[in-house]
Amino acid sequence: MDVEATEPNTEAWSDITPDAARRLVIAAVEAFAERGYHATTTRDIAGRAGMSPAALYIHYKTKEQLLYQISSVGHQRSLALLRQAAESGGTPADRLGTAVRSFVRWHAEYHTTGRVVQYELGALGPEHHTEIVELRRRSEAVMRSIIEDGVRSGDFDVLDVSGTTLAVLSLCIDVARWFNPAGRRTPDEIGELYADLVLRMVRPV
Amino acid sequence: MDVEATEPNTEAWSDITPDAARRLVIAAVEAFAERGYHATTTRDIAGRAGMSPAALYIHYKTKEQLLYQISSVGHQRSLALLRQAAESGGTPADRLGTAVRSFVRWHAEYHTTGRVVQYELGALGPEHHTEIVELRRRSEAVMRSIIEDGVRSGDFDVLDVSGTTLAVLSLCIDVARWFNPAGRRTPDEIGELYADLVLRMVRPV
Repeated sequence: MDVEATEPNTEAWSDITPDAARRLVIAAVEAFAERGYHATTTRDIAGRAGMSPAALYIHYKTKEQLLYQISSVGHQRSLALLRQAAESGGTPADRLGTAVRSFVRWHAEYHTTGRVVQYELGALGPEHHTEIVELRRRSEAVMRSIIEDGVRSGDFDVLDVSGTTLAVLSLCIDVARWFNPAGRRTPDEIGELYADLVLRMVRPV
Repeated sequence: MDVEATEPNTEAWSDITPDAARRLVIAAVEAFAERGYHATTTRDIAGRAGMSPAALYIHYKTKEQLLYQISSVGHQRSLALLRQAAESGGTPADRLGTAVRSFVRWHAEYHTTGRVVQYELGALGPEHHTEIVELRRRSEAVMRSIIEDGVRSGDFDVLDVSGTTLAVLSLCIDVARWFNPAGRRTPDEIGELYADLVLRMVRPV
């Protein structure tokens, strides 16, 4: 996979303690993004974090636990951003614009994490997979509720609410695939552009 | 990675001859989708195709050549579909709708191939990478030309033509990530929904 640059900062992982566990998560994101989950060993990850395999084992018993931790933090953060937008007040258009802007910005800034989270979903164990799918359902429900609010108030005209919700989330998530920090658009600029495009998708004729 | 089902048929690879080379390509797509490029060996691929590593070597000298063949066929097919839509006549809206419908349908039907092509772009050798990037630039240019036609004729109202082109392609490509053949929408239905959403993105107020 094409990893142009590592994440600009480690804000996404600031809640993970102790320090050693956080360093391991950051190393795992980089390793999974570069070589894929299945081609990465816990030894590779420990090495990148400047630790021994035994030291890794203190914090994570398996490689899957690391992937689950990454996926869980990423999905919880996404859900929190969408909830914040849904509760931000203003018209449905204001809230939809805010949701798209912050969701896009996150997927641009944390594009390496976003790729790992999206591409390696199938490598999670069954219980972890179920838990992550539930977080995704909740994010979808929050986005859908904003669109439904706009349809109810007459601000939006949408033929297929669940299909449009899916498309809006998909459009935002795919930013993680193509975003290039050396490219000509900043995360904020893409967020603005996408908020406009999504509001066009739902506006009445 | 989550591979719900193998491709419904092998139409995408019908131009690859002889038979043995085609079988190897199909086996490689499945193996790369399941385990990632870096975790797959040419021995795995030969085994899946019911062939010996020596027999594989007659057709493909390296694993990267297989990835290149997959990526090349996929990108050429995408470009051909978009060109066909651009030359299909009718209004710019007709052509944009046709482009989105056929591009979406391809990414839904060949979602396993689509994932491999998109996720493993960074694993191509430098020359092959340059060639594939050029094919992507051409696809982008064809989609942009349809949107520009509509802006010129006054049928479309678009603030940022290149940004909108990028968003439209991204929306269609990401279908390969989330499409599930057991899900409730068919490739045709998603194509219809997306054509409507994209035409909404570009319509004048």
